[in-house]
Amino acid sequence: MATGERIIMGVDPGTNLTGYGIIRCEGNRMELVTYGLIDLRRIPSSDHGMKLKRIFERTLGLIEEFLPDEFAIEAPFHGKNVQSMLKLGRAQGVAMAAALYRDVPIREYAPKKIKMAITGSGGASKEQVARMLQKLLKFEFDEKTTLDASDGLAVAVCHFLQKGAPQAPKKGKGGGWASFIKDNPNRIK
Amino acid sequence: MATGERIIMGVDPGTNLTGYGIIRCEGNRMELVTYGLIDLRRIPSSDHGMKLKRIFERTLGLIEEFLPDEFAIEAPFHGKNVQSMLKLGRAQGVAMAAALYRDVPIREYAPKKIKMAITGSGGASKEQVARMLQKLLKFEFDEKTTLDASDGLAVAVCHFLQKGAPQAPKKGKGGGWASFIKDNPNRIK
Repeated sequence: MATGERIIMGVDPGTNLTGYGIIRCEGNRMELVTYGLIDLRRIPSSDHGMKLKRIFERTLGLIEEFLPDEFAIEAPFHGKNVQSMLKLGRAQGVAMAAALYRDVPIREYAPKKIKMAITGSGGASKEQVARMLQKLLKFEFDEKTTLDASDGLAVAVCHFLQKGAPQAPKKGKGGGWASFIKDNPNRIK
Repeated sequence: MATGERIIMGVDPGTNLTGYGIIRCEGNRMELVTYGLIDLRRIPSSDHGMKLKRIFERTLGLIEEFLPDEFAIEAPFHGKNVQSMLKLGRAQGVAMAAALYRDVPIREYAPKKIKMAITGSGGASKEQVARMLQKLLKFEFDEKTTLDASDGLAVAVCHFLQKGAPQAPKKGKGGGWASFIKDNPNRIK
């Protein structure tokens, strides 16, 4: 890994669609690594546990594949009702657990802050955010991609633009990179 | 492990106190394995991530130590406000992630249902629930234990009394018992 290079992973958790985006940064430059959606719409609402399992496993899989240094999450603090906030909290919780398990420091950003950081307006539309992301990262969303896929990427870019110092987690017993790398020497490139 | 024996772990997640209890069951009999509290009150409220990390790590640690066959969680569906429900949802989410990671099937129980199953009254006090737990499991809470410690145990006992068939999770890529056992042959007794 080049000196000063860091990988940022952004996630926008939801029990229907969870968007993610990963960027590589060095100094003031950033480039797109990957982005996408964890689509949970085919899992029936009654099988909430399976939705959570899918979010946890996919998030952990992405973390183990791309080894992010920092993890940024979109975290609305206001919702329609307590029921939907409980579901959203659980989706956030399992995504955060994946990062916590691998000792990747987490930062949270409110939706307005993300839009503001990327477009200069807290009331920007999804389309405006997606247009700016394509400009900043010099790529084009492919046609099949829904706008929702840009949400995870937006959090990662917001985190980069904020240059927020990540909260350093205290080392716990399980799961840190050191032990992961020891267990998976073939994963280090 | 004896035929028909199963281990049930109950958890009552909260960002101040998370109670847990583990029982061993066979046929109509059940016995106490352990119970306790994950006390998060010394972690400042501002360090919400550390609270979640602690809940995840301790829950995963207990699962790996006691190898439960089933995981029951106390899940209130109504709360004071959306803020507190988001926090509660996250606490539930990280605890559930630990079970999902090890493919332990999860069942949820509302607080009223738990009280009803144990005491016959959905409006029972913590003291009544604790008294019945001691009677059912033939033990005495030690003096140092707060009543909150009984909440996790109550969920486990409720699950046993309900004889609810656990939801079988579909096998994912990571983490099932098979792979855990393969990775930790010395943990099998």
